[in-house]
Amino acid sequence: MSDLFSDRLLDAIVQKGSPICVGIDPIFDLLPDAVAGDSRTRNANDAEASIDAIFAFTTKVLEIVAPHVPIVKFQSAYFEKYLWEGVEAYYSLVQEASEMGLLVIGDVKRGDIGSTSGAYAGAHLAPPMFDEMEEVVTPDAITINPFCGLDSIEPFVKTAKDYSKGLFVLVRTSNPGSVQLQDAKLEDGRTFSEMLADNLNAIATDAALVGDSGYSSLGAVVGATQTHTMESLRKRLPKSIFLLPGYGTQGATGEMTKAAFTDGKGAIVSASRSILYAHRDEKYAGKSWEDAVGGAVRAMQDDLSTITR
Amino acid sequence: MSDLFSDRLLDAIVQKGSPICVGIDPIFDLLPDAVAGDSRTRNANDAEASIDAIFAFTTKVLEIVAPHVPIVKFQSAYFEKYLWEGVEAYYSLVQEASEMGLLVIGDVKRGDIGSTSGAYAGAHLAPPMFDEMEEVVTPDAITINPFCGLDSIEPFVKTAKDYSKGLFVLVRTSNPGSVQLQDAKLEDGRTFSEMLADNLNAIATDAALVGDSGYSSLGAVVGATQTHTMESLRKRLPKSIFLLPGYGTQGATGEMTKAAFTDGKGAIVSASRSILYAHRDEKYAGKSWEDAVGGAVRAMQDDLSTITR
Repeated sequence: MSDLFSDRLLDAIVQKGSPICVGIDPIFDLLPDAVAGDSRTRNANDAEASIDAIFAFTTKVLEIVAPHVPIVKFQSAYFEKYLWEGVEAYYSLVQEASEMGLLVIGDVKRGDIGSTSGAYAGAHLAPPMFDEMEEVVTPDAITINPFCGLDSIEPFVKTAKDYSKGLFVLVRTSNPGSVQLQDAKLEDGRTFSEMLADNLNAIATDAALVGDSGYSSLGAVVGATQTHTMESLRKRLPKSIFLLPGYGTQGATGEMTKAAFTDGKGAIVSASRSILYAHRDEKYAGKSWEDAVGGAVRAMQDDLSTITR
Repeated sequence: MSDLFSDRLLDAIVQKGSPICVGIDPIFDLLPDAVAGDSRTRNANDAEASIDAIFAFTTKVLEIVAPHVPIVKFQSAYFEKYLWEGVEAYYSLVQEASEMGLLVIGDVKRGDIGSTSGAYAGAHLAPPMFDEMEEVVTPDAITINPFCGLDSIEPFVKTAKDYSKGLFVLVRTSNPGSVQLQDAKLEDGRTFSEMLADNLNAIATDAALVGDSGYSSLGAVVGATQTHTMESLRKRLPKSIFLLPGYGTQGATGEMTKAAFTDGKGAIVSASRSILYAHRDEKYAGKSWEDAVGGAVRAMQDDLSTITR
């Protein structure tokens, strides 16, 4: 297999035996007492202590899930919340995950026009060009927002090509309100998301992005909750790997992701809170939080096994 | 006038006598030699020296423009490029601008679903809640990306209400490729942007956002280059202040912004490179870079004076 992101991801899915992406959404208030202290008395206004707790928690989660999942997704917002201190922790944890052999998605949803997109691509996807930051590891792929137009995506595509990285473009999000804008019916009968998918496919099928696996390093975010449109989007983007958020806490099940897979391939299912905060689920009452995380990953593997086999 | 962002902005426009927003897009390669050293030999791979030069340059630009313009807009991408070090510089410069009496927009174009948008609002718009970061100043307003849906905007709106801050929602961007997605024709005859504007207006006209001036703290980004649709969007969002990027280097003129104003009010025109890097324009040959910046601001004031008078 080539070194392209798509091939590396498909290879890792086979090696780990599951198409699971664990979403790292560290929320201080939800952390286990064993990590962040008694939830009734912990002080969320202490940034340093909060970041330390998030760091310890995330490192342990990564250790637990690394043998079982190919990829993790860091939600940038929960790090940016701690301003530059949080951003530094984000890059450190991306590196930790990478050193554990996990592929990493930076869920940054950036998007802007022209050269500004280029600056975002430099920050979040390219290896840092600065002498002092040579050691810093950036994610293998990032999520991007296509609102500004397809030309706004080009600088990200160039960076992805230059460094064998990947992109997941928002096509259909998992939130209830996505219907109002993304399912808007165009005069030609397509929905807005379908039109977007058709336009993206012209970029995704660029030979420089398509690996030996037949899949492209330009993937799409399609909410696992959006079953009504998944089949249509799958047909319009046949070479794109789908990143399917919304599993678990947001209500999606393995069965609901079926249409995103072709012969058991071509998609990753992302779950965040149902894994990270499994200790809050009564199903895992009496277990340590670490055992709850492990249990939740195994339960998700079982749920998806009928889809990918 | 009330303390709402919209009232503060309209008041500042009157006080400064111009509806100009200076876009702070600091690009190391374009900085004047007097600030960053000989452009043929300067080292862009030295992050620390680059940030120092950007800091010195931006501070000086702010000093020059502060007497003449009500508001500046910091482009986050050009700071994120320097990872957490750049993010720290961003917040410091936001504070500098604020202390000079300028209103500040953080051009971050964030957008995500539900509680993740809440985390972004906490990072970029709310005053920091952390004991160690009490002094940190966040922008008076930020730009946000509505792609995920109107529900994804709600956490930003709540934060704007809680702290008398403002929002500029992307409605029609200034890049050539915006036409493909944003002008997509819906089956009811509206373009996608027009439909988005109609939906946003329901939020913008919320009494808690509308100031004594009659304008809302929920504004819209409409490219100054998009003359063909500006009149229609103005009608659909009568209470929203328009942020009009694209003036100068991207080709828009004062005349092209006319339809965004109502009786000379209700819009700010944003220029970045044509002001920041005016020293590269042969019109200002022989002048210091500081005089070039000042000259470019005054030329823009003149150009806009027929619109706002």
